[in-house]
Amino acid sequence: MYCISYSMMKIVILGSGGAVPSPARSLPSIGIRYFGEVYLFDCGEGTQRQMMIHGMSYSRVKMIFLTHLHADHFLGIAGLMQTLKMNERKEPLFIFGPAGTERCVSSILMGAYPFQICIKEIDENFSLKNEKFKISAFKTSHNVRSIGYVFQENDSRNFNKAKADRLGIKGSMFRKLEREGEIAIGKKKVKLEDVTKPKKGMKLVYSGDTLPCKEVLLASKGADLLIHDGTFSEQHREDAANKMHSTVSQAAELAKKARVKNLVLVHLSNRYKDAAMLEKEAKKIFKNSKVAFDGMEICV
Amino acid sequence: MYCISYSMMKIVILGSGGAVPSPARSLPSIGIRYFGEVYLFDCGEGTQRQMMIHGMSYSRVKMIFLTHLHADHFLGIAGLMQTLKMNERKEPLFIFGPAGTERCVSSILMGAYPFQICIKEIDENFSLKNEKFKISAFKTSHNVRSIGYVFQENDSRNFNKAKADRLGIKGSMFRKLEREGEIAIGKKKVKLEDVTKPKKGMKLVYSGDTLPCKEVLLASKGADLLIHDGTFSEQHREDAANKMHSTVSQAAELAKKARVKNLVLVHLSNRYKDAAMLEKEAKKIFKNSKVAFDGMEICV
Repeated sequence: MYCISYSMMKIVILGSGGAVPSPARSLPSIGIRYFGEVYLFDCGEGTQRQMMIHGMSYSRVKMIFLTHLHADHFLGIAGLMQTLKMNERKEPLFIFGPAGTERCVSSILMGAYPFQICIKEIDENFSLKNEKFKISAFKTSHNVRSIGYVFQENDSRNFNKAKADRLGIKGSMFRKLEREGEIAIGKKKVKLEDVTKPKKGMKLVYSGDTLPCKEVLLASKGADLLIHDGTFSEQHREDAANKMHSTVSQAAELAKKARVKNLVLVHLSNRYKDAAMLEKEAKKIFKNSKVAFDGMEICV
Repeated sequence: MYCISYSMMKIVILGSGGAVPSPARSLPSIGIRYFGEVYLFDCGEGTQRQMMIHGMSYSRVKMIFLTHLHADHFLGIAGLMQTLKMNERKEPLFIFGPAGTERCVSSILMGAYPFQICIKEIDENFSLKNEKFKISAFKTSHNVRSIGYVFQENDSRNFNKAKADRLGIKGSMFRKLEREGEIAIGKKKVKLEDVTKPKKGMKLVYSGDTLPCKEVLLASKGADLLIHDGTFSEQHREDAANKMHSTVSQAAELAKKARVKNLVLVHLSNRYKDAAMLEKEAKKIFKNSKVAFDGMEICV
């Protein structure tokens, strides 16, 4: 993984297990903190406590994106909402997920809430944009209706601090230059391009539970980070096919084909006690593979 | 605490927190393993994982007893049932709780189960007996309908191993003697009383969330172990009264009056980072007080 200190993004694997938790692995959830707001991707039982343990503020959760409606991926919403209610949250919270989300999530939200919970059922045509990023969905291949998500940061420009200093740019001048594209310093005009260089937005992809498939491959093209189902080892390829999950080798093959920069494997089955063995299997195919652990922090 | 090795009972505090979990404390649940079967008292979010972490078999759960229907005390049933379903459990599972339990628990049990889930709504008149123990309910004083539970082991007799050896009692003769009260060894008749001494059954009491009140006092009389609400420190007595919880001092006073042998304080508020301070406060009033921690194992 690589870490750039000025990034305002932090990704934490809150639960790296799947189906049934284990002492080492909580149920699926990934938290992305971006400019002070938190976006959760899946929210298995225990997610609120995992957030507390691994330093991701549960009160900052703005949106929750569900990949599918198996209970291990969404039961944690119930407890998290109770805690936010006790904290007297006022801001609305958005929950996105495939058809059926309204019924499933509503059944575990007991009582009234002092904040609005907006549940929106979406499909692979979903996308949501703001001035900083776009989140879009894509089709995946599991044994219930399922989708994955792309978090695509907008391209931007990075200031060259040394150059800006030399030109006497300081304080609010940075913001003005960003807004107006040009500022006057004495008699000299300075353009935004003079003191910045283009910065490509990060692309993060989360597959949820899925067989390797062309839609995931397509969505993952050139991603900085692909977080992919790695439930099984290659020796249990048949189990993976029957249960519509991936082996770590299959995930690594897909990562290689999609030319992603980094692959993180999640939803590990409890049958494997040795994560290093799984990582070795994936690395043979795609070098930048990592098996996730609870609390794994990824800075991009 | 005291630990007698031949006891077939193990009590584990699975969650020592309350309302909102913390990195250190999971939500309320107490597991009693008794002759290979597990009885859960409350089942907050994360209970199944706490059982895995602290060595109490989730597949052996036979009955769940809820003290009241605040979400922090029962949301863990949802995930536990999903896991038991995946394990293809066949045996029925019983859930007891106050009026409203049927509706609350059913709403979080998604889909069909390959085993019977029998939900029974009970009140303070409830009691359940088998050949080894009796579990009964008593009224408590919280801001919703609430009950506490007494687990009363039947009185029995303990074999004096040395004496039995001297008399030549071995193997299946022990069981025969227990069953028939008398056996013949050669020409000699040996009575059960000759090689055993009476053993008083253990009495365990769990208050759930409650103000200190006469019903809890009465139910706790002479208990070997009282597990009591200790949400607040005495300095927040007013908060305790408003929220219908107890301070650790109030719990200790009740334990002293009820002449229990041991007091364990649970449902600790997150505001107290120093459990030792709370324990000190309780010990001033009742020496055999302990503040619970997650995974605390009590052998009686």
